[in-house]
Amino acid sequence: MFDTITVIGAGRAGSAIAARLRERGLTLGEGGDLRLLCVPDRAIGGVARSIEPGPWIAHVSGGTPLAALDPHERRFSVHPLQTLTLARGAEQLDGAWAAVTAETPEAHERALWLAETLGLRPFALADGKRALYHAGAAVASNFLVTLHRAAASLFEEAGAPAEALVPLMQRTIENGFELTGPIARGDSETVARHLEALKGTGFEPLYLTLAEATRP
Amino acid sequence: MFDTITVIGAGRAGSAIAARLRERGLTLGEGGDLRLLCVPDRAIGGVARSIEPGPWIAHVSGGTPLAALDPHERRFSVHPLQTLTLARGAEQLDGAWAAVTAETPEAHERALWLAETLGLRPFALADGKRALYHAGAAVASNFLVTLHRAAASLFEEAGAPAEALVPLMQRTIENGFELTGPIARGDSETVARHLEALKGTGFEPLYLTLAEATRP
Repeated sequence: MFDTITVIGAGRAGSAIAARLRERGLTLGEGGDLRLLCVPDRAIGGVARSIEPGPWIAHVSGGTPLAALDPHERRFSVHPLQTLTLARGAEQLDGAWAAVTAETPEAHERALWLAETLGLRPFALADGKRALYHAGAAVASNFLVTLHRAAASLFEEAGAPAEALVPLMQRTIENGFELTGPIARGDSETVARHLEALKGTGFEPLYLTLAEATRP
Repeated sequence: MFDTITVIGAGRAGSAIAARLRERGLTLGEGGDLRLLCVPDRAIGGVARSIEPGPWIAHVSGGTPLAALDPHERRFSVHPLQTLTLARGAEQLDGAWAAVTAETPEAHERALWLAETLGLRPFALADGKRALYHAGAAVASNFLVTLHRAAASLFEEAGAPAEALVPLMQRTIENGFELTGPIARGDSETVARHLEALKGTGFEPLYLTLAEATRP
């Protein structure tokens, strides 16, 4: 569908994507018939404007609308819904989903081809919903890091090993996010005991907000 | 170390624990030389007082102090740090850690024996730190459920499949909780776009509190 792909940007996303395209036998290089922007969100507009209209252009950002690719019209977006690291290679794309946004059937077809070539499971996402979708992804992934940091800090203060949190958090996911613990049991005494213990740790506001959001 | 164990309570914890003790060939039944209280936290005190002092007594609660086992003196606690479900059996204890609290070397030795017999990895936890430890466990596990619910709700509103969140959340753990995304990149424009998109969803306060806690 594309003969040569120009991957622009060699950060977490660009590195994994370029490695996967190479694995698939595609030619990477300058002047490709697809320019794939793997640059920070705020750089997308500038890079897009610096490219002469003609070839296809796409970005891999989660929350950025297609208008950031103006003035190009042959455009789409494929966002790998995964937390990527330079410590892993192309294989980190396997099993991840991808939000695909396009304005024409032809662009959609090309976006699907790219997602599938990358080893991603594509789903269509409306351009106007990208920010909401990306906020959801940040809640699920970035704030999971925040929860772990908070829990590890409380464990450290309690003299418990932070590594003990890992099987607990993994099983919470494996069990389909079934809620257990004091809030699920309606055990307000235990919740009050938690809040008492959290005094002075700085984690009271976080606990209160999340406890409120957890209650049925 | 114990000949007969009386497991009191057949909820999530009691069922898994009784199944594992049976697997290990231990005799379960009335009048055991260890009474193992697997009852809701608020019931521990009443059940303990209803037992004639003499045999060993223990509870498996995370946040409850040993004093709840008054007037017994031969006592300890082993808390399996895992989210348990009736849909799984004894195997769900494998790989989980356990907080062990005891007041004498003899009680500690018995607590370690129980934890190891259950297939748990024990660590010592001071009685006065139980509430703090348990708050940390709730943050890691219960609030992870809350994050997923919030993210799934935002995905639903965006027309994205909630199942796509699972590989993302699993990899966030596998990558050692490495923070990626807009906050890690210092990308305040994307964060502002998230907040704009969250207006009217009810998730703004949750996002704001967590974003604040995520910033370095």
